[in-house]
Amino acid sequence: MSHNTFGQLFRVTTWGESHGPALGCVVDGCPPGIRFSLADIQRDLDRRRPGKSRFVTQRQEPDQVRILSGVVSEGDGETLVTTGTPVSMLIENVDQRSKDYGEIANQYRPGHADYAYDVKYGVRDFRGGGRSSARETAARVAAGALARLVVPGVTVRGALVSIGVEDIDRANWDWGFVDDADNPFFTPDPASVPRFEAYLDGLRKSGNSIGAVIEIVAEGAPAGLGAPIYAKLDQDIASNLMSINAVKGVEIGEGFNSARLTGVDNADEMRMGNDGKPFFLSNHAGGIVGGISTGQDIVARFAVKPTSSITTPRRSVDKFGKDVDVVTKGRHDPCVGIRAVPIGEAMVACALADHYLRHRAQTGKG
Amino acid sequence: MSHNTFGQLFRVTTWGESHGPALGCVVDGCPPGIRFSLADIQRDLDRRRPGKSRFVTQRQEPDQVRILSGVVSEGDGETLVTTGTPVSMLIENVDQRSKDYGEIANQYRPGHADYAYDVKYGVRDFRGGGRSSARETAARVAAGALARLVVPGVTVRGALVSIGVEDIDRANWDWGFVDDADNPFFTPDPASVPRFEAYLDGLRKSGNSIGAVIEIVAEGAPAGLGAPIYAKLDQDIASNLMSINAVKGVEIGEGFNSARLTGVDNADEMRMGNDGKPFFLSNHAGGIVGGISTGQDIVARFAVKPTSSITTPRRSVDKFGKDVDVVTKGRHDPCVGIRAVPIGEAMVACALADHYLRHRAQTGKG
Amino acid sequence: MSHNTFGQLFRVTTWGESHGPALGCVVDGCPPGIRFSLADIQRDLDRRRPGKSRFVTQRQEPDQVRILSGVVSEGDGETLVTTGTPVSMLIENVDQRSKDYGEIANQYRPGHADYAYDVKYGVRDFRGGGRSSARETAARVAAGALARLVVPGVTVRGALVSIGVEDIDRANWDWGFVDDADNPFFTPDPASVPRFEAYLDGLRKSGNSIGAVIEIVAEGAPAGLGAPIYAKLDQDIASNLMSINAVKGVEIGEGFNSARLTGVDNADEMRMGNDGKPFFLSNHAGGIVGGISTGQDIVARFAVKPTSSITTPRRSVDKFGKDVDVVTKGRHDPCVGIRAVPIGEAMVACALADHYLRHRAQTGKG
Amino acid sequence: MSHNTFGQLFRVTTWGESHGPALGCVVDGCPPGIRFSLADIQRDLDRRRPGKSRFVTQRQEPDQVRILSGVVSEGDGETLVTTGTPVSMLIENVDQRSKDYGEIANQYRPGHADYAYDVKYGVRDFRGGGRSSARETAARVAAGALARLVVPGVTVRGALVSIGVEDIDRANWDWGFVDDADNPFFTPDPASVPRFEAYLDGLRKSGNSIGAVIEIVAEGAPAGLGAPIYAKLDQDIASNLMSINAVKGVEIGEGFNSARLTGVDNADEMRMGNDGKPFFLSNHAGGIVGGISTGQDIVARFAVKPTSSITTPRRSVDKFGKDVDVVTKGRHDPCVGIRAVPIGEAMVACALADHYLRHRAQTGKG
Repeated sequence: MSHNTFGQLFRVTTWGESHGPALGCVVDGCPPGIRFSLADIQRDLDRRRPGKSRFVTQRQEPDQVRILSGVVSEGDGETLVTTGTPVSMLIENVDQRSKDYGEIANQYRPGHADYAYDVKYGVRDFRGGGRSSARETAARVAAGALARLVVPGVTVRGALVSIGVEDIDRANWDWGFVDDADNPFFTPDPASVPRFEAYLDGLRKSGNSIGAVIEIVAEGAPAGLGAPIYAKLDQDIASNLMSINAVKGVEIGEGFNSARLTGVDNADEMRMGNDGKPFFLSNHAGGIVGGISTGQDIVARFAVKPTSSITTPRRSVDKFGKDVDVVTKGRHDPCVGIRAVPIGEAMVACALADHYLRHRAQTGKG
Repeated sequence: MSHNTFGQLFRVTTWGESHGPALGCVVDGCPPGIRFSLADIQRDLDRRRPGKSRFVTQRQEPDQVRILSGVVSEGDGETLVTTGTPVSMLIENVDQRSKDYGEIANQYRPGHADYAYDVKYGVRDFRGGGRSSARETAARVAAGALARLVVPGVTVRGALVSIGVEDIDRANWDWGFVDDADNPFFTPDPASVPRFEAYLDGLRKSGNSIGAVIEIVAEGAPAGLGAPIYAKLDQDIASNLMSINAVKGVEIGEGFNSARLTGVDNADEMRMGNDGKPFFLSNHAGGIVGGISTGQDIVARFAVKPTSSITTPRRSVDKFGKDVDVVTKGRHDPCVGIRAVPIGEAMVACALADHYLRHRAQTGKG
Repeated sequence: MSHNTFGQLFRVTTWGESHGPALGCVVDGCPPGIRFSLADIQRDLDRRRPGKSRFVTQRQEPDQVRILSGVVSEGDGETLVTTGTPVSMLIENVDQRSKDYGEIANQYRPGHADYAYDVKYGVRDFRGGGRSSARETAARVAAGALARLVVPGVTVRGALVSIGVEDIDRANWDWGFVDDADNPFFTPDPASVPRFEAYLDGLRKSGNSIGAVIEIVAEGAPAGLGAPIYAKLDQDIASNLMSINAVKGVEIGEGFNSARLTGVDNADEMRMGNDGKPFFLSNHAGGIVGGISTGQDIVARFAVKPTSSITTPRRSVDKFGKDVDVVTKGRHDPCVGIRAVPIGEAMVACALADHYLRHRAQTGKG
Repeated sequence: MSHNTFGQLFRVTTWGESHGPALGCVVDGCPPGIRFSLADIQRDLDRRRPGKSRFVTQRQEPDQVRILSGVVSEGDGETLVTTGTPVSMLIENVDQRSKDYGEIANQYRPGHADYAYDVKYGVRDFRGGGRSSARETAARVAAGALARLVVPGVTVRGALVSIGVEDIDRANWDWGFVDDADNPFFTPDPASVPRFEAYLDGLRKSGNSIGAVIEIVAEGAPAGLGAPIYAKLDQDIASNLMSINAVKGVEIGEGFNSARLTGVDNADEMRMGNDGKPFFLSNHAGGIVGGISTGQDIVARFAVKPTSSITTPRRSVDKFGKDVDVVTKGRHDPCVGIRAVPIGEAMVACALADHYLRHRAQTGKG
């Protein structure tokens, strides 16, 4: 079943296709009285925006967001205040190149949803991937920018920690560098940039693409968000991240590595602090235990598969049942994982906003 | 917010604590006319049941399931038929040992939800982990046994593929061995048993525990299940698996390894078969592309952290703000990942049943 | 689709059939720390209980409720405290008379769901109405008894205001009389009792039955519950009341009479009180304006159709396509509306509890 | 909690305020392959459009709908085909008169949500009623126009059956007259027009307003839609209709009158037809028994209160705690019930579309 809403109380519904006139989202359940400016939303959209370096798609989209409902202006011409009614945000598609889609319309590109779509729906908007295009993620980023404002004191940041077989050096981690103008990769490790550039240039020139791993860290989330069972905070973060295009794996804290650890080594021990508050001596758990946040940093990682659209021919079939060789031209990210950083941040921010409201509902706290 | 229901159309609600009188589930939305016997449900419960080897908890629970609603008997005394109304299943807790919980009641065990619970709720049922006990998973297994019957032709199987640093040899994979009476590990590799035994015995004797990785494979699922965006089949599988106690990571197909692959290597190429149907030359995708099943095997893996309850003392604090050393006695699985195999199967079966009904709703197919 | 859960945050799932071993509910989302006793739940169940007068069904069910999860005992043997996890409540069916259902199994009783069930599901539990039996409402009453405790300061009461063409005299309204031992009708008008008795006795003896109207009043609900559009408080009250068996109409405040009023007459004017708080000069709105509570009494009414099970023969068909005359023997309420009073209270209490939590989520108030 | 989505599978989310730049809806879950034209949507919007007679608001809004996603064009420039992805529809607000809202901004108009909003949210868009404006219903009508196409063979029609104390004569019922150009009332009784005109003119000139009752009839719905308990078809119709602005009561079939009937009189008897199919001899039930459609006409009625915005002064208070007299100028419908006819149709059509998909999900039928 088509289902384009996520969240229980901070509910985000997105709509739009790659080559339609526009895309957007409706954010329902946002608390009233939140003050922000259009620039707060635009800032995150600009970080996700295509065309900023040779390592991402050359499609040129200004991604200017309009807010159509759910806010009143404070009169200074800048400040908007949420009213508690649904916030509708719209982004026009500008650079839909008109080209001949004849081949793509009938061929099933490996790694794309083309075949599954035709089996499921019998009809599809093949232009630019239609609903499955990564352009849809602009709507998530807009919603996430609003979500960031819901939980007091929370900061959600992300960084790319590996491209293909090339990893960052965690000893060099510098959050300040992630959004640096000279950093086309959202890497936190300045030393990784030339390595990544050389690696990606090689892949791009050979008509190939590559995957990536992104890490999201939320600081300042209060303890108590989540639930013991089917609304675990980590479960909803996993669901949100896995819903991003091309994601094939999600982990929290030690993640898959925890399967290799002993209980002695994996325990996050506690002690009382001088401030009379307990603190943890480690964070293998990634800030979530038993589905509930502990007050530590929340740490999630997700794996993005290599871009399926490559210029190296791949064998496939067409909708008429004929064998074909598919070459996907056009303007594609050689590593879709790069621009996934602000998207991952948005999805974690949405999960936190939702659970903050749910926590407040059941306990009256927050 | 407490939220103990999962699924949109095949909806499972579970309830119950480790040391309460009983636990159970309500399965709502099950199609009418499904024929089964109590033994079909009991079989999966027996596979998950504690006390079957020295490598799992020694708590003795018969886990006899009773069906209280939603079925009529066919008169042969065996066959039950679903009526389309909610199926309520109940399992009594038998072996709740009455002991002194004084220390556990006040101490926060590292790796457990104790601290987060107290911050969130201010009250908790500390006996045996309360709602967070792995006993809750018996209810999932009962629901999953019913879910298996919803999608025609689907077989969902699971196997443990690693314990700690010990991996199976995939060349030895034998599905028939997984449920063998001489296999205490749900491993598909007969040669791994003595290795696993020695490894686990060593850990257990030293008062330690270990994590594991489980793989679930669903064969025979039709192409077309899932949705492009926020109801991706892989997203809901990830959510379901991440909701299992102690799970810290989930992946589909190549999973985290896909981040290290190139687009050329990761492409699942297609060709037309002699039967006039397209087939895939590989399955890096794990049977799901763009959120929608392709008709290939659906492959998911999840990582289970080591049991937090260990007899090696760990530093912690108590609810009175005092530093304490915690030793967790009692009857605990040294590797909770082992019994997670039938649980993982159940959660994947539930996701498939739900998406099968959703697919039928939107498209009329299936 | 079968859907046996209502509420968004205070979620009630019920299960069970008339002649199964038991019925029950799972209340999910209840705040932690609510203190109550089993007697608080049993009191409402006893009010709904069958067999208390000659004007209701003679089926004898003790309706003893058991609480299986979600609470801890305070140690005094009486006080239970909610833990925030799902509260499972179970009521055994005791007096399912074993009789020959041969005819009912194959005939479609007019006014009952028999025909619609067979068309929809192709299979049904015909014994005592199966899932559609009014016995299911015991589960609602149990859930409602818990819901009453969620919103501080709220009192939800109901009364029968008419049976057939016999109305109460509102000038005689006495809440204290509603639960009087000599009042078999939940009427608030002592003078109506002999009239109702004579009227009902006549109908019963002639093999007939009759409808009724019930009014529910919630006092003390805070202003601000509800939402402007698709989660209006009156909308959810209407949905909850219309979900009760045999209900054919719901209205709020002036209800259908408001369609006959002018704007001048219907306006609930306001003035400032000496306490510095605004107050209303009338309550045509029934305490809800624009979907949101105003702080006045919330007033809802619902119409219950006459019992369909009557001993006067009615024409119908059977499942083999033959014309038949149906006479429904057995133990039936001549006016199902009577026992609907505590059920209506429960459904309004559940709506208020749900909206109280939703209000707290979005605004932090309450 | 703000909640602006209704439906489980055919899900409609609406957004927008009276005086914002636009309003709209997102329809999610629509089956793929439905063929329609923009004119199909526009037709219903034109029926609801303001400014068409002196008996409705004089605000001039073209209400031109744009479809931004979820469809592909067939190439004939007219036919659109749904793809199964969310359908986003947008209507611009054109005639928001810029006037001084000083008084309305601070005064609580009796019968409006002003006071409740301020208590709940602390902030509101007071221009034209903001989110609570009846302009929101344009979005419902657009969604409903799509919903009409989902259930094969269903026709949903509505008519006004009374204005204030003036009723239609059912003997004159003529569906063909409802949309007649000379019928400003959606009345099915041509003879009622002069009566209604005189009545309304009198009210309007005296600065007053009046309520109305609307009846919706759905013909051709298959038997089997709905569910026994918390997803009864009548329950969801009641919920949908009660969510319309100013609605205070909803009834199905005989509705409140059924409370005055005996079981003998209320029974809808059945007989076998010559075509081998059972038929009903009456339709007191309004086409729904036990929550499930019987295949007869589905009949629902709802009561709309008189317009609260009147030019006769009413006593109230302002947000500063001062007594005030409120006179509501502006362009208001003297009877908001008139334009509620196409809105009621839309809401019933949406309920049917949703239940059709839910029925197909659980049973595979339809």
